[in-house]
Order: sequence, then structure tokens, then C-alpha cells
Amino acid sequence: MSFPPLDLNPSEFARQLGGLYPIIQAPMAGGITTPALVAAVSRAGALGSLACGMLTPQAMREKIAEIRALGCQDFSVNLFVLDDVPTDDAVVAAALKRLAPFYAAAGLAPVLPKSWAQSTQAQLEVALELRVPVVSFTFDLVDRDVIKALHARGTRVIGTATTVDEALAWEEAGADAVCAQGIEAGGHRGGFSRNLGQEQLGCMALLAQVCAAVGIPVIAAGGIMDGGGIAACLALGATAVQLGTAFLCADEAGTHPLWRQQLLNHRACETALTVAFSGRPARGLRNRFIDELALYASEIPPYPVQNALTAPLRAQAALKGDWEGMSLWAGQAHALIRSASAAEIIRQLVAQTREVAAKNRPLYGWSD
Amino acid sequence: MSFPPLDLNPSEFARQLGGLYPIIQAPMAGGITTPALVAAVSRAGALGSLACGMLTPQAMREKIAEIRALGCQDFSVNLFVLDDVPTDDAVVAAALKRLAPFYAAAGLAPVLPKSWAQSTQAQLEVALELRVPVVSFTFDLVDRDVIKALHARGTRVIGTATTVDEALAWEEAGADAVCAQGIEAGGHRGGFSRNLGQEQLGCMALLAQVCAAVGIPVIAAGGIMDGGGIAACLALGATAVQLGTAFLCADEAGTHPLWRQQLLNHRACETALTVAFSGRPARGLRNRFIDELALYASEIPPYPVQNALTAPLRAQAALKGDWEGMSLWAGQAHALIRSASAAEIIRQLVAQTREVAAKNRPLYGWSD
Repeated sequence: MSFPPLDLNPSEFARQLGGLYPIIQAPMAGGITTPALVAAVSRAGALGSLACGMLTPQAMREKIAEIRALGCQDFSVNLFVLDDVPTDDAVVAAALKRLAPFYAAAGLAPVLPKSWAQSTQAQLEVALELRVPVVSFTFDLVDRDVIKALHARGTRVIGTATTVDEALAWEEAGADAVCAQGIEAGGHRGGFSRNLGQEQLGCMALLAQVCAAVGIPVIAAGGIMDGGGIAACLALGATAVQLGTAFLCADEAGTHPLWRQQLLNHRACETALTVAFSGRPARGLRNRFIDELALYASEIPPYPVQNALTAPLRAQAALKGDWEGMSLWAGQAHALIRSASAAEIIRQLVAQTREVAAKNRPLYGWSD
Repeated sequence: MSFPPLDLNPSEFARQLGGLYPIIQAPMAGGITTPALVAAVSRAGALGSLACGMLTPQAMREKIAEIRALGCQDFSVNLFVLDDVPTDDAVVAAALKRLAPFYAAAGLAPVLPKSWAQSTQAQLEVALELRVPVVSFTFDLVDRDVIKALHARGTRVIGTATTVDEALAWEEAGADAVCAQGIEAGGHRGGFSRNLGQEQLGCMALLAQVCAAVGIPVIAAGGIMDGGGIAACLALGATAVQLGTAFLCADEAGTHPLWRQQLLNHRACETALTVAFSGRPARGLRNRFIDELALYASEIPPYPVQNALTAPLRAQAALKGDWEGMSLWAGQAHALIRSASAAEIIRQLVAQTREVAAKNRPLYGWSD
């Protein structure tokens, strides 16, 4: 089965909605977005995204090959835009000292990672070589030349923004579309900010302002879990929507069983925005690790240092079945999560959106 | 000119949309929601709200009489639900000590207020006696008996919630509708929480979950500034919307000229959620006062102590034309603000909502 190519020109996008729903499965790092998930999503008429931010170039190659071997030609890959990796020994030493009690409690000795983070440049070269259909970027802006190089290979580019200024910067740099990520979203904040001090815009305020400010298509993200959310984002002016948490319990997702269990059985669990796990603001189910590290949030080193140094602790917590020590990323509307195949989740999303639209039509008409 | 009575039964509500738009002008304390604004809003087919939380019973009587004298029969009054006023001398002394540098800089001597806050009970008695059509409550739940007493006088009751649990509590207590206030909203958080530590839900996540949880009509609030926002909230399942910031620059509003000027000329100004001014979380334009007090946020006494003790400082800042010392409440989408008559603002909101609905109809239809 083949699909029409993703075209991000707004009118083209709309024209194609009959065959390709304006729904994107968000990239989720740490092995959540398996090739099987990405392919299943695309097969069901939405767009799957492979999270490559934490993959070696070799792993990235293998997973893209897997996606293609599953008959999927239309998909997106997501890259982190990271500065050169920090190697400040004093920062690392201070971070390790802060984490020492956690290592001791876990019965582990601290080990420095072989590499702090993957090279954005090396990953980009793989994306160019393999002519992936869509590349999305998070954490920072890329140069115009990078976008031009991708365009020259036939690749569409999506930037991620959490403010109006960031969205304008992506448009100016030549991106084909911008993903506007509201504060409701699970996982890492995809914008340029590295701290929790700046204003964090909710979807309702962010979309209204971004859609008014930019001319390129806007993809809405953050707290969208059902057809009501999809219809709402389209009403706010978005051309498409991106859902992450909604796919965390998809059969094909690589989500850890404990993570699934927490999502499905503890729907009342609060989420929190935290730098505890990675050094960058991210939203996950609130647990002991988040609360304990909140006490010295200002001393936590930036990504990727904290991310690399807490990785062994999180792996150990997962082994021991201790969800309170794991990073269980989730959006604010996670209580509405469904456990089903990706195809079934998409089928329900589409049916609900149509239902909402039909129900609201008389409302919208008002006294007409 | 007279208007049909506000009926909060969902289907009735929908049936009346031709004559009464599902738009509520939010109550905004401190003299913003003048009788002239409330009456103009209701005259234009929406529902005006008078903020009574900080009014003496006598002032409340006078303003309600003014609204009625303007020919407006359908309006809402908002009350704060406050515990007995704290009189802990040690708390007050510590608060005054913290504010001493600010008083010194303003050239003022600290003066304790004659009363810390108005009595909710006394205000409630006025609402009952005057048979106001709608009463909305913020800051806490009221007893079932209070709601029964209001119903017995023909008054409809709206509760305010910032979480699913709070919305369920209002439904259980017998409220006719619940206003779900997202984190985007300007001014005070209307829910039961008194600190910034709990999860703060964005509109997209809050509405989806509250509309799924309760059977009573849901009124959406937070970051709604235009027809796109209104259509979005209806798509999410709301029966009506409540807008505050959108009316801050209405001709009839009592907004201070400096506040208007900041909103209209500095649209890029960030907002912040702060306890600096009142001791309760509230969102306003970020300024020097917020940033300076953020350094000892945990030591700020609760509402109404901080509110009363900062009032002379804020009044002095307003006199001096120093917006950096004033509490300029505003929602996250304040950049989309309009300066016009209330009637013109409502006319534009209605026209935009219809336009959005018409534009999105083919999108919603998808492959149908």
C-alpha cells in the first residue's frame, strides 16, 4: 500500500485530507517510536515520526531501513539541535556529587558516559543521504543552509516552537511548517528555552498567536488526546495536529510495561514540568525522583549532562520495577489514554473528530 | 430592550444561541467590571459579570442597582469564597518586614488595613436579597445549602474549577455549571489551590477532561481572545466561554490608563504566574515587582494578608505612573487585545466565530 506524499502547503494539505489525515504521531525518544509504530501510523493514514535525537548514526540508519522494509515511504525523523557537548569537569563533578545519594541508594557506582550526546551534524548527514521525506527539529534553530540542503534532497522541514518568536524564527529560516508545542505536552519542551523561568504558553494562547503571526502551516501539539482536541486545534488555525501521549499505549510502541501500567491504572496521577531527569524542562508523571530533585532544581546541570548522569539510575529503577525513579513522560491529558493498535487509535481519532464537527455545526451557525 | 433569561441547561442553552451568545465577560476585581461594562455586554447579547469579591455589601448593592438602572436584567455577580480572615500577628509582622524596603522606596509608612477582606457571608446575603440572576464563585467550594438557598431565590450558580476534581466537587454540590479555568487565564486562579506547586492545567487538557467528567455545562476560560478560541472551546465540549482579558481595553471597563497602555503598546510583554501581589497565584504582565518578590516567594503570606499589605504600594505606583509596581493582570494571549466598545468587541467575536466555523467545515468533513 502506498500513500500520497506529505505536502505541507496549506491548501494542498487540506486537499489531501481525504487520504492523509492531518495527524502526526509525535517523535518520542528512548525507543518509544519503534519502526513498527511509525509504519503502522503511516499505514493508517497519519504521519509517523521516528525519534532520532538519542540514536547513533548507525542505529538511525537501521531504523529507517526497517521502516522502509515495512513498506512505509512517508514518515518523519526528529533530530535534537544541540550545541557542542559541554565538557566542563567542574559541572560534571558537582552534578555527580548531587546525585551521589541516589547512586548509593541504587547500589551503583557513578560511571561517566562514553559520549554525552549524539552529534546533530552526523545525524543530519544520515537524513540527507537517506533522503528522508520529513525532518523535524527540536531544542534549537538550524541555519538556513541546513534547511536548503534538506530541501535540495526533497525533504520537508518542520521546526518546533513554544513561543511566537521561535515560530517566526523558523519561518524566517525557511522551514515548511512549525510545530507549536503548548505547555500541556508530555516529554521535553521542544523550543529554544533551557530553563523553567520563561513564560510557558498553554495551547489555547500559543496557537491563537502563532497562527496569527506566521504564514507557514502550524502543527498543534500539547494535550491533544481525542477528536475534540483535534477539532479545537483546527478551529484555532492549525493545519495539522501532533499527538504523542495518545500513542504511548499503542500496541506497537516501545513503552516500558511499568510506564504503560502507570498510565492505564493511575489516571489521576499529576504531571510535573521538571529538569530533574535530563537538565532540560520536560513533563512527566510526578514521582519521588522529581520531588526530591525539585529541592535543588537551580543546581541541576544542563542537558545532556544531567540526562547522561541519571540514565543508569533510571535504568536501575526500571529493572527494579520502581516507577518512582523512572522518567515517565506524559502530557497533561494522559488520563484520556487508550490502549489499542495504532490503526485503531487513529480510526477512533478520525471518527471522533467527524462526530465533534457534526455536533458543533449548529452551534457554530448560531443565529444564521 | 430585554433579553431571554440565561438558562444553563445545555440544550436550552444551545436553543437560545441565536439571541444570547454563549459568551461571558469574566468578573475582574478592582473596579474593572463597571456597571456600564456589565450592562453593555448584556445589551450586546452576551452575559456581563460584576466582580464583587472586594466590594463591601453596600458597594455591591449600589453597583447592582446601577446595572439594573441601565436596563440590564441578566447579569452575573462573582464572589470570593474565603475562610475567616487570618489575624496571626506574627504572619503580618513578617510580611511587613519583607515589604519594608518597598515601603521605604515608595516613601510610605506601612498602615494596617481596616479590614483584611470582605465577608463572603455578608455578600451572599446581598445576592440573595437582591435576587441576582447568576452568582459565580471562585477560590473555594460553597456548601450545598448555599446553592439551595440561591436556587430558591431563582439564582443560577456557577462554580470555578482548575482541575477535574474541583469540577466534580461543584457538580456534586449542585452547581448549575462549572467554569473550567486554564492556566492561560489572566488574574487569580479561581480554583481551590492556594499555591503554585500543584499541576497547572492548560485549557486544551483541562477542557477535554472536565467535559468528559461532568454532566453539567462547562464554561471555558483561559487564553480565549477571538473567534478561533471560542470555536475551539465549543469543539472541546464547552457550552460557553468566559473572556476577561478580551474586555480589559473595552471603552466601558474601569481599567487604569497605564494598564491599557501597557496592554496596547507592549504586546510582546510576557506574563507570569505570581503570588507577589496578593498571596494567591495570579497571572499578570511580568514586571519589576513580580521579579523582585519571586526571590522569596515561599515567604509571602497567603491571601488576603499580602493583598492588603501591597495595596498601598500598588496605589502609589499607579499614582507615580510606574507600571512596574502595579498588578496588571492579563492572560497569556493578551497580545491579541482590542480597544473598542464592549458591543463592538462582542460583534467581532461573533463574526469571527462564524467565519472560523465556515472555514473549518470542509476540514472537519475530511473524506466524507
